[in-house]
Amino acid sequence: MLRTHTNGELRQEHVGQTVTLVGWVQRTRDKGGILWIDLRDRYGITQLALEEGVESEEVREIARHLGREFVVSVTGTVAERYSKNAHIPTGDIEIRVGKLEVLNPAKLPPFLIEDDTDGGDELRMKYRYLDLRRNPVRNNLMLRHKMAQAVRRYLDGQEFIEVETPVLIKSTPEGARDFVVPSRMNPGEFYALPQSPQTFKQLLMVSGFDRYFQIVKCFRDEDLRADRQPEFTQIDCEMAFVTQEDILNTFEGLVRYLFKEIKNLDFPTVPRMEYADAMRWYGNDKPDVRFDMKFVELNEVVKGQGFPVFDSAELVVGINAATCAAYTRKQLDELTNFVKRPQLGATGLVYARVEAGGVVKSSVDKFYSQEELQKWKTALNANEGDLLLILAGPADKTRKALSELRLEMGQRLGLRDKDTFAPLWVVNFPLLEYIEEEGRYFAMHHPFTSPKPDDLHLLDNPETIGQARANAYDLVINGVEVGGGSIRIHDRAVQARMFSLLGFSPEEAQAQFGFLLDAFEYGAPPHGGIAFGFDRLCSLFGGADSIRDFIAFPKNNSGRDVMIDSPSPISQVQLKELSIKTDVVGK
Amino acid sequence: MLRTHTNGELRQEHVGQTVTLVGWVQRTRDKGGILWIDLRDRYGITQLALEEGVESEEVREIARHLGREFVVSVTGTVAERYSKNAHIPTGDIEIRVGKLEVLNPAKLPPFLIEDDTDGGDELRMKYRYLDLRRNPVRNNLMLRHKMAQAVRRYLDGQEFIEVETPVLIKSTPEGARDFVVPSRMNPGEFYALPQSPQTFKQLLMVSGFDRYFQIVKCFRDEDLRADRQPEFTQIDCEMAFVTQEDILNTFEGLVRYLFKEIKNLDFPTVPRMEYADAMRWYGNDKPDVRFDMKFVELNEVVKGQGFPVFDSAELVVGINAATCAAYTRKQLDELTNFVKRPQLGATGLVYARVEAGGVVKSSVDKFYSQEELQKWKTALNANEGDLLLILAGPADKTRKALSELRLEMGQRLGLRDKDTFAPLWVVNFPLLEYIEEEGRYFAMHHPFTSPKPDDLHLLDNPETIGQARANAYDLVINGVEVGGGSIRIHDRAVQARMFSLLGFSPEEAQAQFGFLLDAFEYGAPPHGGIAFGFDRLCSLFGGADSIRDFIAFPKNNSGRDVMIDSPSPISQVQLKELSIKTDVVGK
Repeated sequence: MLRTHTNGELRQEHVGQTVTLVGWVQRTRDKGGILWIDLRDRYGITQLALEEGVESEEVREIARHLGREFVVSVTGTVAERYSKNAHIPTGDIEIRVGKLEVLNPAKLPPFLIEDDTDGGDELRMKYRYLDLRRNPVRNNLMLRHKMAQAVRRYLDGQEFIEVETPVLIKSTPEGARDFVVPSRMNPGEFYALPQSPQTFKQLLMVSGFDRYFQIVKCFRDEDLRADRQPEFTQIDCEMAFVTQEDILNTFEGLVRYLFKEIKNLDFPTVPRMEYADAMRWYGNDKPDVRFDMKFVELNEVVKGQGFPVFDSAELVVGINAATCAAYTRKQLDELTNFVKRPQLGATGLVYARVEAGGVVKSSVDKFYSQEELQKWKTALNANEGDLLLILAGPADKTRKALSELRLEMGQRLGLRDKDTFAPLWVVNFPLLEYIEEEGRYFAMHHPFTSPKPDDLHLLDNPETIGQARANAYDLVINGVEVGGGSIRIHDRAVQARMFSLLGFSPEEAQAQFGFLLDAFEYGAPPHGGIAFGFDRLCSLFGGADSIRDFIAFPKNNSGRDVMIDSPSPISQVQLKELSIKTDVVGK
Repeated sequence: MLRTHTNGELRQEHVGQTVTLVGWVQRTRDKGGILWIDLRDRYGITQLALEEGVESEEVREIARHLGREFVVSVTGTVAERYSKNAHIPTGDIEIRVGKLEVLNPAKLPPFLIEDDTDGGDELRMKYRYLDLRRNPVRNNLMLRHKMAQAVRRYLDGQEFIEVETPVLIKSTPEGARDFVVPSRMNPGEFYALPQSPQTFKQLLMVSGFDRYFQIVKCFRDEDLRADRQPEFTQIDCEMAFVTQEDILNTFEGLVRYLFKEIKNLDFPTVPRMEYADAMRWYGNDKPDVRFDMKFVELNEVVKGQGFPVFDSAELVVGINAATCAAYTRKQLDELTNFVKRPQLGATGLVYARVEAGGVVKSSVDKFYSQEELQKWKTALNANEGDLLLILAGPADKTRKALSELRLEMGQRLGLRDKDTFAPLWVVNFPLLEYIEEEGRYFAMHHPFTSPKPDDLHLLDNPETIGQARANAYDLVINGVEVGGGSIRIHDRAVQARMFSLLGFSPEEAQAQFGFLLDAFEYGAPPHGGIAFGFDRLCSLFGGADSIRDFIAFPKNNSGRDVMIDSPSPISQVQLKELSIKTDVVGK
């Protein structure tokens, strides 16, 4: 190696040793006749010193011309510092430089390579290799590395086998839009990139692999919202001969292991919540249960007193924002505007303060007597000093708006601390959901999810299809869905029935998924699995909102890598070889 | 779990316990009033017994109708066997079945699910999920799993960080043909799938990651020969602040660790050989050094005796096939035909036997006296009983043919045992090679490989360009190249020079690799790395010639996955969204 030690390694005990260090110049200063250089690498920072009259003037001359981010090699003697720096592990020592060589000079970086940088998003994306030098970004990726190793260690210890499934697969009509790859050797035909290795992992169960996992890239050609990436990574798992309970227990073990290994946090069992309860109590299938503030349905309590908004509403539902009775008019207006935003679309917000002596003062006092308002207080289990927030309207829309309002209040009340983790299993999702625009049912999880045996009969009646529950579950942490899975169908007839419910003709089902239907006839075991969003899981453990800084080379919201300038046009020769043309003139 | 134990778990000590097992029916037999069933899962085989008059007739009736590969659940009592089977770990016990449930019936498989199957290649590819049930195939993939975990354990222990690099990148003109992915959001533009994460791992070094690795899928749209796959897996590694020696030592450590962990083999250091020596001694840059049989150049020895073939040849070169003097005329004809095959194209084979008393009898005795022939014997260090095999012609072609003949003789002599492993570093490859058909130089490794500093001046002269050596190295095991790498260029000017030598204009170089050239100006450290072919490494450790059975779902020689029937046509809607058309009518 071109070094004897890293920049994070030297301590008091090394004093007197001759060492060679390499790294990047973090900063230089010339003070009191001494040139100081902070030398940086992945492992830390070491201070170099070149004192006038002590270190050679020739070497000092080289040092004087070092710029930020120059790559240098220094050989010198480890010396005890006069003034120690307790903030860094190498703070007791410095290097008295005998030899200094510039391995590569550096132009002035376009933004500061410091924990707090002055670079904007676009600039940092273009020079991603410089942004990756900053400690916060590199630490995110080191966390990701540690998470990946821990995940594999745990699963390997549980007899899971890591199997690589193919990346060049077949386009399927169900699910999100596929990225496709034209085949040169099979003109006019295309591979697709996998949205998940779903069918392959099921086939591995049919093959008797018993327990499979993979940390694997998946691809979705969707319009990118903030924090979605066209390529993303899943921890993909499948087990044979299991019930839902077995899967929950196994992967609860993984989650606990990760929290212990990475965050040194001990967790008891992860609580479980029915999907129906999550919707009723939190208006959300991924509730943030770091705080309570459950929904209370108020139809019985508030209707019939002549307030038309409540009387005509399908649902009146409220939360108790404890301790917020002192909210000002301005604050309440902010909350009203929050729920009236187009994406939530509430028509208004009714509030009521529980004032001194338990007296309730509401925004609709002219319709409700104090006696009636006391019923609200009781229903919402409110005390003096609490603020009741109530929405009314169509049930689904109102629950969604109140869910957002609840999260907003949790945020305002400091109940959503990034260092507090509240994992939760949400279980027994509906099997199907009706999408109005498409005029048909879609699989809520995916078409391979098994119905609850008790609910099978509900599929026979068009009126009750939507009520059938699935053996499906999500792992939610702090209001973020970090994983989801299901017990799969392993019976050809049930799978064929499911395809039929989803609008596939038998021929279409056979053409697209014939290999899986056939496989089910050759001895398929009961099986199920789960997939975790690895990017998301890392960002959650890293206490960040965005996944982007947990991905080494992310794409922007147009799906572009602005650093390498991709995608880009390809040559006519390439197009011709692939037997395709573009519709775009000049490309 | 639907089981209490696996089928590989029960022993004498479990006798008397009530257990529930699940698995596949391997075979059934009815003998002496007892129905026997072998129940199989990934972990082993357990024998079930249902005796007439002992186990319930109702359960025996179910058992009587079980077919091969039925998936069943049984509950029963562990009993000691009358006649034990020492060949399997569970051979001391059997299960006396109290309850038997068919979890899923199975159609008769299209081929035998046994270690030796009757299924042909095509059939087994179509029903890959059944082929994967066979022990040899599953064992290959379990070996692969173990190798992957061991690789990560070793590299993690050496401070390497696993970083995922993007799959949707940019098409580049150098190297093999890219697979491309049309971008819907950027019409007329394409991503490419990576042939390797080369530039990204170099950028990670510029970012100060210091040590990077990844087990990663790579893609090449090449015409597929046997044992090439369009998607394949690399162990991809890069280190900063290293010399070639550091890389060789670090990854020699990996190789030794793998041999120890996987095969329990101890290796001393891996020998090193100059590329030039490999070519001179073995006619091959990936010599199989499980056996010696080195080339001996004979120009000085054989020329000038009036044998036109030798006299006119650029190179006369031979090997000593020790102990083969008794080869029959037929065997020698086989060898002659072997070297005369079109792909080798030798014009003939000269041989000489060292007979009793050291007398040499050659196929060209009319040109050579015994005295002359004795010189051959001496040159080739031959003894009584040896056979000398000599080829003559253009140097490169002749060496290549003799290399193949050497391997053939090694095979015939049993010197290429699959359980013997001979790793070797081949070092100091040429930087560039001239490709006649293209009329220009190509990078022998890739365009980012650094020239040997001592050889830099050779690049200044068109006459000597081809002689410049690179800091490039391959790891060869048993004649198979399992890894290769180089110390990279980290200086913008040198990299620009290299692109120029490869025929890029400065504008083309900037358009394609501007991000890398730019990165080199912001403080790039010296760095280098290596990539191992993981599929190949697994097959080598597994003692197999083909990589295909170490890949869960391989493609055939036309790049097709015949199981899922991919690639396939996509819809007009998809094509339109992607702004492309196919040239193929009807697709």
